[in-house]
Amino acid sequence: MAHPVEQMQSHLAEKMDAVNTLIRTRMASEHAPRIPEVTAHLVEAGGKRIRPLLTLAAADICGYQGDHDVRLAATVEFIHTATLLHDDVVDESDQRRGRPTANLLWDNQSSVLVGDYLFARSFQLMVETGSLRVLDILANAAAVIAEGEVLQLSVARNLGVTEETYIKVVRGKTAALFAAATQVGGVIAEATEDEIEALWAYGDALGISFQMVDDLIDYGDAADTGKNTGDDLREGKMTMPVILAIARAEGDDMAFWERVIGKGKVEEGDVARATEILHRTGALDTTRDRALEWSAAAKEALDLLPQGPLTDTLSDLADYVVARIS
Amino acid sequence: MAHPVEQMQSHLAEKMDAVNTLIRTRMASEHAPRIPEVTAHLVEAGGKRIRPLLTLAAADICGYQGDHDVRLAATVEFIHTATLLHDDVVDESDQRRGRPTANLLWDNQSSVLVGDYLFARSFQLMVETGSLRVLDILANAAAVIAEGEVLQLSVARNLGVTEETYIKVVRGKTAALFAAATQVGGVIAEATEDEIEALWAYGDALGISFQMVDDLIDYGDAADTGKNTGDDLREGKMTMPVILAIARAEGDDMAFWERVIGKGKVEEGDVARATEILHRTGALDTTRDRALEWSAAAKEALDLLPQGPLTDTLSDLADYVVARIS
Repeated sequence: MAHPVEQMQSHLAEKMDAVNTLIRTRMASEHAPRIPEVTAHLVEAGGKRIRPLLTLAAADICGYQGDHDVRLAATVEFIHTATLLHDDVVDESDQRRGRPTANLLWDNQSSVLVGDYLFARSFQLMVETGSLRVLDILANAAAVIAEGEVLQLSVARNLGVTEETYIKVVRGKTAALFAAATQVGGVIAEATEDEIEALWAYGDALGISFQMVDDLIDYGDAADTGKNTGDDLREGKMTMPVILAIARAEGDDMAFWERVIGKGKVEEGDVARATEILHRTGALDTTRDRALEWSAAAKEALDLLPQGPLTDTLSDLADYVVARIS
Repeated sequence: MAHPVEQMQSHLAEKMDAVNTLIRTRMASEHAPRIPEVTAHLVEAGGKRIRPLLTLAAADICGYQGDHDVRLAATVEFIHTATLLHDDVVDESDQRRGRPTANLLWDNQSSVLVGDYLFARSFQLMVETGSLRVLDILANAAAVIAEGEVLQLSVARNLGVTEETYIKVVRGKTAALFAAATQVGGVIAEATEDEIEALWAYGDALGISFQMVDDLIDYGDAADTGKNTGDDLREGKMTMPVILAIARAEGDDMAFWERVIGKGKVEEGDVARATEILHRTGALDTTRDRALEWSAAAKEALDLLPQGPLTDTLSDLADYVVARIS
């Protein structure tokens, strides 16, 4: 099938042009020229703009005729970019690892402050829609995002993390913004409550599925991604495959996880050994099953929405997310 | 005279109790217990709560009877605390200097993410007031704050900085939140446009005066502050006294500023020499005059407001801010 993101980009091309223009305009700062310098490489870097596309698609599916969808699409992209900048803030130990993050080009302080600027700008944009309900949804999403990121940080290297905690983290770091992006599209279109709820459920399930696939990819369980593997292991992240493997640990497995994840002592060959354990215990298979279930849940939510080409594309997108692993 | 902040605390004690309760409630996170751990030492540290007091006082002066003033007071304190946490994020070079900031107790990532959480919480609180105008004012203030901080970062060690740029930085880092704090108090009280404008002008002028006094204190030009002197010099900050001294540089002065501020090569005895130059060129005197002018402007703005004991206290506060240097 044609790439669903490209289908959306093509279907919503005129709106996306307006979104991109608005992003460039609002990113500028008369007083602080460093701001667009820092953001340009993120905002212009040819990201797929999946979150703003979700907002535009949701509004379109629900028959929206105005132009607040463009503001909200730019809003979610600004929030996404701000969280990327803040994720780039690293501690000394991470800097030694030499990751090519924004803050090696700039510095921690610029990453933080320019991220704050983009949050403020996103906030101004959503106020312009005049919808208190939209503001409420996005304020709550912002809180869930920050809470999820803090939770992830505080449970790193904690072997006792449950699947329930993992889902909370994932809802924060990924699904909350997807779900808010689709939901606000329905809200400004004055969709029915059932439709608005379905849009939230779609974004939420899509985001969780997306993150589980990302977790699998980090252990090399996907072809041609061009992504480095083993980062999650080195950072001691308690992702879905690791949580399952620890629950099913046998023989020396537990000692391995305690050393590598618990104590952060990663040696040569550990990524390969982790991958072997994840295969042997079926942790990768179960994670794949879960990702497929969430993808199916996302598609099911779409049944409650008006049907049309963009609804079909959202369904294709839910398939596409898991196509990388199936 | 009695300390005007204590006067406000006493006059608004019941409201401040409600603010403190709300802060504690909203700071909590069911999912991420680290959040209150990080914020507690900031929020509970017995700060004067001057910003929430300004919001409560403004609303009271304008005859407000409801309880949104409590939400907005907690909002501005959350924004203030979030900016403190983000200011604490330092780069490696700063860490060597060993400042006792929050992020030595925790880490850069926690400071950033918990700050983001507090921003999101403040956003939720202001949405609860249901006032789009309040949201607009606070969104704009958030943008001005971030812009001012980035501007300050990008003009550090730049000897060509003008007084105009300095005022922009100060409006961002200090005055914008003071001005928004007083202004939103008037807005929820449905004060007249003249009163709302006067409240903004008061907060703005108070904030600028406050920051200029802070700049003077950093060069030891005040008694009994308990504050370390010379930090601004070591960080290469282009504060008002330095801007004036550079404009009036004579003899070897310029070479000194180029080495110390421009190149950041600070040697033993440089703080004393900087202070000597600032005295000789009259830079400290002129900064003091400017601070007094802004303090007078703050008091003048109060003439347009309903008069009463709290209006008098705000006037005393403008005097108190400069009392440290006169």
